[in-house]
Amino acid sequence: MSARDPEKLKTKLLEFAKDFPFFNLVGFEVLDCGPGFSKCQIRLRPELHNPNGVLHGGVLATLIDAGITQAMLMTDEYQVIRDTKGAMSTVDLHIKYLRPISSGLAICESRVVHMGKRIVHAQAKVMSDEGKDLALGDASMI
Amino acid sequence: MSARDPEKLKTKLLEFAKDFPFFNLVGFEVLDCGPGFSKCQIRLRPELHNPNGVLHGGVLATLIDAGITQAMLMTDEYQVIRDTKGAMSTVDLHIKYLRPISSGLAICESRVVHMGKRIVHAQAKVMSDEGKDLALGDASMI
Amino acid sequence: MSARDPEKLKTKLLEFAKDFPFFNLVGFEVLDCGPGFSKCQIRLRPELHNPNGVLHGGVLATLIDAGITQAMLMTDEYQVIRDTKGAMSTVDLHIKYLRPISSGLAICESRVVHMGKRIVHAQAKVMSDEGKDLALGDASMI
Amino acid sequence: MSARDPEKLKTKLLEFAKDFPFFNLVGFEVLDCGPGFSKCQIRLRPELHNPNGVLHGGVLATLIDAGITQAMLMTDEYQVIRDTKGAMSTVDLHIKYLRPISSGLAICESRVVHMGKRIVHAQAKVMSDEGKDLALGDASMI
Repeated sequence: MSARDPEKLKTKLLEFAKDFPFFNLVGFEVLDCGPGFSKCQIRLRPELHNPNGVLHGGVLATLIDAGITQAMLMTDEYQVIRDTKGAMSTVDLHIKYLRPISSGLAICESRVVHMGKRIVHAQAKVMSDEGKDLALGDASMI
Repeated sequence: MSARDPEKLKTKLLEFAKDFPFFNLVGFEVLDCGPGFSKCQIRLRPELHNPNGVLHGGVLATLIDAGITQAMLMTDEYQVIRDTKGAMSTVDLHIKYLRPISSGLAICESRVVHMGKRIVHAQAKVMSDEGKDLALGDASMI
Repeated sequence: MSARDPEKLKTKLLEFAKDFPFFNLVGFEVLDCGPGFSKCQIRLRPELHNPNGVLHGGVLATLIDAGITQAMLMTDEYQVIRDTKGAMSTVDLHIKYLRPISSGLAICESRVVHMGKRIVHAQAKVMSDEGKDLALGDASMI
Repeated sequence: MSARDPEKLKTKLLEFAKDFPFFNLVGFEVLDCGPGFSKCQIRLRPELHNPNGVLHGGVLATLIDAGITQAMLMTDEYQVIRDTKGAMSTVDLHIKYLRPISSGLAICESRVVHMGKRIVHAQAKVMSDEGKDLALGDASMI
């Protein structure tokens, strides 16, 4: 177990996310996070649409990539790596698009599913605020 | 063979991309396109960085998703689908991140590699303006 | 709801799998299945090893592909497709290898996670008989 | 540059593959290989069919996984790793199935597309002996 205070770390991460320029650009918000999970969202607006008038696939990919990273930040393993070797980074991101959406919220729940010695795997699911499945994602980080 | 004029279609697509809101938001530009290929780019700026100070993975995913879609738009097959069944959409997007980048250009070359009756597969490669490999991507559309 | 008898269909599928030549070649066995899930296994033997002396990745891919297919067979949707349009087939298979294994059992649990109108997505997890995670997989079928 | 004799290494690898039990079980043959590429094949036989009477997806996955590994074996980087840290292994395998096949040959050409410090990426394409595309694959190894 880490000697860190999880509540302090969480507060710090949520504060950081609120003011982070890229997150503001795409409207990415962290709703909740903990060691190995996160709940994040993007509020849709026409500027995020693709030419078919629905949320651009790249925005969903951004939501999943950022959400999965957030799920990893509070793990003890990540904190150790950050203090020693530097940041981990996504090596592989995979998105399955299930259903288009044009307004409301895209809410992404992410969780770390395997922490190996050299590689970490995580999965995510994106739903609308009406509970419809929008996308599935997975990522690997080293 | 389609009776369309490819040069007119290309001009129309390039014009459309220049003014499209989401493309402007992330700085996505179409440099060239034709039936089954495209060359697109995003000019990096600090607002597109992730918390590690390098281009956010979601932006690279956006570049690849949009670039691959662009590569499909001028194919006769897509034009037929557009006129009959409506738009095709990405069902699966897969990104491999090779190297971080913090400034300059991310240039994506996409090409359609297989056009089946029900599914289309395409591949993309992203390089920096210094010729370094940044990411590989593939997508399937139905 | 289908008018089929699920128990009869299950018995039929389990019987079929027992005598199927390719399944016997690699030692693939169906332990249980139902609409949208399956539990299958392969018993390791040296003939299935790769040159490093552990289970070949292709065998794990086979276990996952066959297991996921099995999970789909008892769904009403699949039975309708089989009766009308013919067989569905895997268009995309994705495996993440977590840990090598050289003896014992590789046990794969698969479940259908999304049934769209045109595409079905499923996920699988392979564990050893000692409960260690060996691989994660997902597949899409059209 | 390695001091190894590439021709000797190639002869050794081809000899090894010819007698390797798992390769014989599925009929996997190495036709050619070099640093960063390989050409391998599987001769179809009814025992490799799935219940629809076409080559099982797991066999194609095996062909691609084994073919990509073969493409890596002759690289200097791999030889150094083998001599120091031990074997590399596939962490991620991704197959796109393009077309079913029931007889003849499935021929897989693989090439390493990126050699990073920590991760290697390779791609493969499988064709029939009539030149039809059967599958695309990619894999990452660490």
